[in-house]
Amino acid sequence: MNDALKSLAQKMTPEGLDALLVTDPKHVYYLTGFASNPHERFLGLLLIKGEEPVLIVPALDAEAAHAASAVTKILTHSDTDNPYNLLKECLGSTALNTLGIEKEHFSVSRYELLADSISAKSFQDIGPLLRSMRAKKTPEEVSRMKHAAELVEEVLRRGLEHVKTGVSEIELVAELEYLMKKVGASGPSFDTMVLSGPNTALPHGVPGSRIIQPGDLLMFDLGVYAGGYASDITRTFAVEEVDAKLVTLYNTVLAANEAGIAASIAGATFGSVDQAARDVITEAGFGPYFMHRVGHGLGMDTHEYPSLHGLNTDVIENGNVFTVEPGIYVAGLGGVRIEDDVLITADGPQTLTSFPKEWTVLHL
Amino acid sequence: MNDALKSLAQKMTPEGLDALLVTDPKHVYYLTGFASNPHERFLGLLLIKGEEPVLIVPALDAEAAHAASAVTKILTHSDTDNPYNLLKECLGSTALNTLGIEKEHFSVSRYELLADSISAKSFQDIGPLLRSMRAKKTPEEVSRMKHAAELVEEVLRRGLEHVKTGVSEIELVAELEYLMKKVGASGPSFDTMVLSGPNTALPHGVPGSRIIQPGDLLMFDLGVYAGGYASDITRTFAVEEVDAKLVTLYNTVLAANEAGIAASIAGATFGSVDQAARDVITEAGFGPYFMHRVGHGLGMDTHEYPSLHGLNTDVIENGNVFTVEPGIYVAGLGGVRIEDDVLITADGPQTLTSFPKEWTVLHL
Repeated sequence: MNDALKSLAQKMTPEGLDALLVTDPKHVYYLTGFASNPHERFLGLLLIKGEEPVLIVPALDAEAAHAASAVTKILTHSDTDNPYNLLKECLGSTALNTLGIEKEHFSVSRYELLADSISAKSFQDIGPLLRSMRAKKTPEEVSRMKHAAELVEEVLRRGLEHVKTGVSEIELVAELEYLMKKVGASGPSFDTMVLSGPNTALPHGVPGSRIIQPGDLLMFDLGVYAGGYASDITRTFAVEEVDAKLVTLYNTVLAANEAGIAASIAGATFGSVDQAARDVITEAGFGPYFMHRVGHGLGMDTHEYPSLHGLNTDVIENGNVFTVEPGIYVAGLGGVRIEDDVLITADGPQTLTSFPKEWTVLHL
Repeated sequence: MNDALKSLAQKMTPEGLDALLVTDPKHVYYLTGFASNPHERFLGLLLIKGEEPVLIVPALDAEAAHAASAVTKILTHSDTDNPYNLLKECLGSTALNTLGIEKEHFSVSRYELLADSISAKSFQDIGPLLRSMRAKKTPEEVSRMKHAAELVEEVLRRGLEHVKTGVSEIELVAELEYLMKKVGASGPSFDTMVLSGPNTALPHGVPGSRIIQPGDLLMFDLGVYAGGYASDITRTFAVEEVDAKLVTLYNTVLAANEAGIAASIAGATFGSVDQAARDVITEAGFGPYFMHRVGHGLGMDTHEYPSLHGLNTDVIENGNVFTVEPGIYVAGLGGVRIEDDVLITADGPQTLTSFPKEWTVLHL
């Protein structure tokens, strides 16, 4: 049994759960090591208090599940079987008061089938429990996240070689996503963003056919999936000589990024990280131009719990990984964002991303 | 109001629906023209019998919705609002017997919020209704699907130029996905597949680092999304001179592909298309080596209703679009699959894909 599964089993009594059913394939992977995409077929990990965990998989995934899963009791169903009957057999004579399910991941269609087969006095949402477990990364998860960060930095490094006269934003996106496959990542962890010149002032701009010009800022926001975990980095560069005001924006954002990282300490609130970065930008007079939260949790999802907005009073713990990505966006002038992935350790914040952050001028 | 929305409104009385709520973003796009990814935020199209449709969107999508949606009554909610209160206000004093929802797309979490706000005697699944509507493509949808097919064929044509000494399967995949962006597609409609030599005998093989060799078969299975619609094509080529047995496989699969297309006539069953293709392969003695269904519906999803397996007795109608993709896979020897996208018209089957299918030898 892996550590996450052990920890989940131990939480059943305090959470008042007689049994629980995990159905999000990402969580089945997290708890068993078996990664799959069952499409519309039923996949479930069933934990009954005090019993051995059972993994229920489509028959065509049986071999893969036996090879990868730390849970060794595996039941299979074919397309003509009713998987809810399997669940019923497993639960047998167990008198269920409370069955935990992932209510955000369980459709009403499935719930009706479940409720027809299983009698439980109540169905309790185990989403928040899994969410909080996932926020504390294990050493194995951290090592996968470091690898995902290394790969995306290799992609960025090699991608920069393609910044040449005549190249467009969208061509750079295509080049970066090509490099992701080349370096061995599974693929992008979100839509790769390359914005240039005035487009950098759009925090959610979409890369287009604009050709990179001397005097532009050039912003890259990209990430990869590797080993089931995401990385996410933003760097902003100058293309040849740019307006001196842009250098001021840059230095302000860099100071905010560093202040946010320095504030990322176990025991502080997530909101205080946002505040630390925002204070730097506000004091420099750009407060209204930083119109988004400072970051988000990172892991098996690119955006996961916690959200690093100013009002979040939840407390940072060792093992948390989140992004710190302040930005300043001035319409008509340009925008800068600098983003790192930060791991909280007993020795303080440690950045998983290490791509240089000093002001850098690219030449076409 | 677009045709699909009009048709859905007209079906409310025969289906016994007082009101219905569409929440799958793909279906909101289908019915209103407004495409969005609301992530965890609430998006819904509410139809009350005899009343004007209402689109409920997150506040930050308001501008985009007004610009794109054929439904002009648009209500917005911010992150601190409860969107279910908006629904309640819209339904007002309406006495609801039956509210239609998309049960496969509605999570238990949302259902609990909905049932807390709205009192309806029953909640009815409108998934099957939308599924059957989507299976009959409108002229506008057909024109988008033709465009998606043209783009993927351009990608395949240009991708073939990269079949050279020393190139691997995965490098060709990266090249093809790069070309998809270059030609203006939104991206791949599924994981691009390039298999070579013995790997072609695996119907669900995963592209790897194997280098293309003289004597190989080389199979490409790829598709793109464009304008919200998918294309999907498979072609198999020879690399230099190959074993004569492979030519026999190829000609058999080509004849099966053509027989399947010829059997794709309004009024026949979906199962009969599978049967027509399978008969050709069985008569040639390769029956056991064609171990999958002949095809699947294609549209906003790469795999959608109908499933073209031998036992499907549902009847083909004009406007249906599906793939016809027989294959023969002989372990240790190689495999061939040839796939086209077929539109059913009053004049018979029309292929949206037109890439040449004659036996083609590539030179390294």
